[in-house]
This record gives sequence, structure tokens and C-alpha cells, in this order.
Amino acid sequence: LPAPLELDRLRVVLVSSRNPLNIGAAARAMSNFGFSRLRVVNPYEKAFRTARSAVGAAKLLASAGEYTSVADAVADCTLVVGTTAVRHREVQHPLRRLEYGARLIRKHMASGPVALLFGSERYGLSKQDLSHCHWLIRIPTVEQNISMNLGQAVAICLYELIRDGRAAARSEKQLPATGGEIERITVLLADVLSTSSYMLPQRAAETEQRIRRMVRRLKLSAQDVEAWLGILRHVQWQLHYGKKKID
Amino acid sequence: LPAPLELDRLRVVLVSSRNPLNIGAAARAMSNFGFSRLRVVNPYEKAFRTARSAVGAAKLLASAGEYTSVADAVADCTLVVGTTAVRHREVQHPLRRLEYGARLIRKHMASGPVALLFGSERYGLSKQDLSHCHWLIRIPTVEQNISMNLGQAVAICLYELIRDGRAAARSEKQLPATGGEIERITVLLADVLSTSSYMLPQRAAETEQRIRRMVRRLKLSAQDVEAWLGILRHVQWQLHYGKKKID
Repeated sequence: LPAPLELDRLRVVLVSSRNPLNIGAAARAMSNFGFSRLRVVNPYEKAFRTARSAVGAAKLLASAGEYTSVADAVADCTLVVGTTAVRHREVQHPLRRLEYGARLIRKHMASGPVALLFGSERYGLSKQDLSHCHWLIRIPTVEQNISMNLGQAVAICLYELIRDGRAAARSEKQLPATGGEIERITVLLADVLSTSSYMLPQRAAETEQRIRRMVRRLKLSAQDVEAWLGILRHVQWQLHYGKKKID
Repeated sequence: LPAPLELDRLRVVLVSSRNPLNIGAAARAMSNFGFSRLRVVNPYEKAFRTARSAVGAAKLLASAGEYTSVADAVADCTLVVGTTAVRHREVQHPLRRLEYGARLIRKHMASGPVALLFGSERYGLSKQDLSHCHWLIRIPTVEQNISMNLGQAVAICLYELIRDGRAAARSEKQLPATGGEIERITVLLADVLSTSSYMLPQRAAETEQRIRRMVRRLKLSAQDVEAWLGILRHVQWQLHYGKKKID
């Protein structure tokens, strides 16, 4: 995973964005994932700093660099990657799926600054913009609707850059209840069912075995054992003594 | 990867969403990634169908189910997963990072319907909403800003469900130029530099070796070999005959 210092090596470059809400959304996603360097090239609305949806990203927007050309916006970067919705046959650059492209970007961020370019909401990056790029990435959308919302596209690309494929191993699992704990619950439940006449004496052994199997299928967690025992004890007590009070 | 039939098994459930733009953005992301079943529970704005940002998602919004309780919205699902921004210590459910949780959801989608719940923009899912969930996922944001835009959160979760970790192997690479092609370029370049007096006769061998190394560091692609040879031939011709015309 990229270290914070390396996240600082990514420049998110929005080219000719038309909607301040999208610029705000891009800034918000950057803030969510720990990126800080936003650059805008010829934004359609000069008032992009007022972007309202950018909860928690005001500082990031205030420090965003404003440029009049892609060349200037990427001048300090040693890798320039464009984003596109179109498929390979239509582009004249190497085109990589995001899953793979992000891995290459991450590798590059270990050594130098990388620019990630996003085009306008309506037209994407122009051929002129694209000619500044080393290669392109596309988000793997379905053929029927390849056009993504700009703010969502930025969020997904940044997420892919910080995602951790090995997170699985580190996630906590709930501890399962032990055989002994499950049996205490089984015995108590069988007792409750016997008291409440659910369990007929002549079929007690058979019913108890069925209950035992059912309780084992519940995948009880260790943390819930005492609560279930408490519930069963309470019901058992009510069955024995509760009714008598009402009578 | 989930088959289209399996994508149809996911229900995206938006609970108490306040902003029609976000409902539209969620629908658009669903459409981008091939999902179709949207459900809304008590949307703040009843007029969610007018959501303007939902380019290409009108059909999906028109067929969205509207419910008055979470219980009803998830009644047909065999797995119910909630989304949350908060960290483990604050929740009473098993909490998984998206990377891992999505894998479990994908597995479950092979056999039965899954509900993925998103709460309101301001408050997220309530404790009451969460009590309907088997477990929760969180998007791995930085501690400093854990609160994501709803439309972006939906887009990222759906992307993680369809992403293909093995996409790398299938992505096309540009074919590198062969040693022979690179040498043709080297020889022609050396000739141009000799003609233009860049290469001094007494240091010709040394300069040519330096040029040869530099050309090899360019990582020339096979597809560009002819274009570079054409450029060099043109310059060579100009050096030999072009100037004479001007004289």
C-alpha cells in the first residue's frame, strides 16, 4: 500500500470540468482516501472553489492549482495517465483496465510524481489532452452504459489506488461458540420445550436430537452464548413460576 | 466474476436518502456496472424519479421499488449487508473492509439474493436499520475524513463487486521494437548526426556507442519504428538537399 508520502505524489488533474459539484465531489473523494494535490485546467466555472458538495474538502479545494494548459499541469510529473470511457479500438494509446493500471501507478508513485487526468463531463479528454499521456486507463463498465459521472469516476480510481487486496486476512471474525457452550444452550432449550409441552415424553429422545442438530446449524457466536442462555433461563423461570402468579 | 444473472441478485437499498441527485447517482453507477435492482426506503424527497444526474439510468429509476420499512425491502434476501463509515469499536456487528466483504457478497450472489444497504447522507444507517443486517462493510477511508458522498460510496461498492483482480494478465501491452529495428534507427540517427556535424569524426565511434545506448533506453514500440525511420529519413534528406535549394 502507498505510504502517505507517496499518496502526496499523485496529482489529480481535472481538465475542462463543467460542473462545480463534480469538482467538489472529486475533492471530497481525494480527502476520503488521503490524497491532497488537486489541479484544474480551464474549469468551465471559475467559481469551482464554491463547490458545495465538498464536505471536508475545503482546504484541498483552496490549495488546488489552476492551469491554462495540460502541459503546464503535468510539467513536474514523470508519468501521465489519462482516463477514458471508450474501448481499445477507438484509442491510439495503450489502454489498461483500472485494476491493472492502478497497480502500475502505485509502483510509479514509489519513485516519482504521477498525474491522473480526467476530462470534461460531456466530452472526456480531447485528443490533444490525450497526447500528453503515456497511457490510459478505463473503468470496467458494461458496454451498454460506459459513461460515468465524473465525481464517481474519480472516487473509484482513487479507491483502486489505496485498496488492499490482502485486507481479508486482517479482518476480524466473530469467534464461534464452543461445543460445550452450544450443548448448554441445547440442554436448556430442550428443558424449556419439555416444560412447555412442545416435547412429547414418548418422543423426547428423537426431538432432543433434532433440536441438537438445529442449534448446531445456527452458527452461534461466542459473544452471544450468555445472552441466549439468559433468554432461555428467563423463559424457563416464567414457565415454572410466572403463570402461577397470574393464576 | 459474477455472471449477469448473478448481478441481478443484488438489491441496492437506499434508506432515507435525502438528496434526489444522490439517488440518481446511485442509479447511474448501478447502470454503469450492470446492476438493475434499486430499492428505496422512505426517501426524503418522494420525487426521486426526477433525479437529474442519472444519465442512462431512467429505466432503472422507473422500476425502483419503494418501501416503508427496511424489513419489507430486504424480505426476499438471504444475506443483508449494511454499509457504515464508523470503525469497529463503535459497531455491534461483524465489520469487514470492502475488499473482503465484497468477496463474500459475490460468493453469496451465486446462490441467493443479497441486499446492500446505504443510509442517509447525514446520519447513515440507524441502529434500527443495522439490526436487520447480518454484517457490515466499510470503505477504507482515512481516519481524518471517513464520511463519503452517498453516490460515490455506492459506485465504489459496486465497482468492488465487479472488479477483476486478474484483469492484469489480459491487458494488452505494446510490442517492443526488435533489436534489428532499433539498430536501423540507431544507424540512421548516427548518419543524421554525422551529416549535421553533431558527431565529430575523431570521436565518431564513441559518440555512436553513446547514441546506441540512448536509443535503447527509449523503449521504442514496434508500431512506432516506421514513423521514427520516416522522420529521420526526412531530416537526412533535408540536410543533404534541402539547404541547397535555399542557397
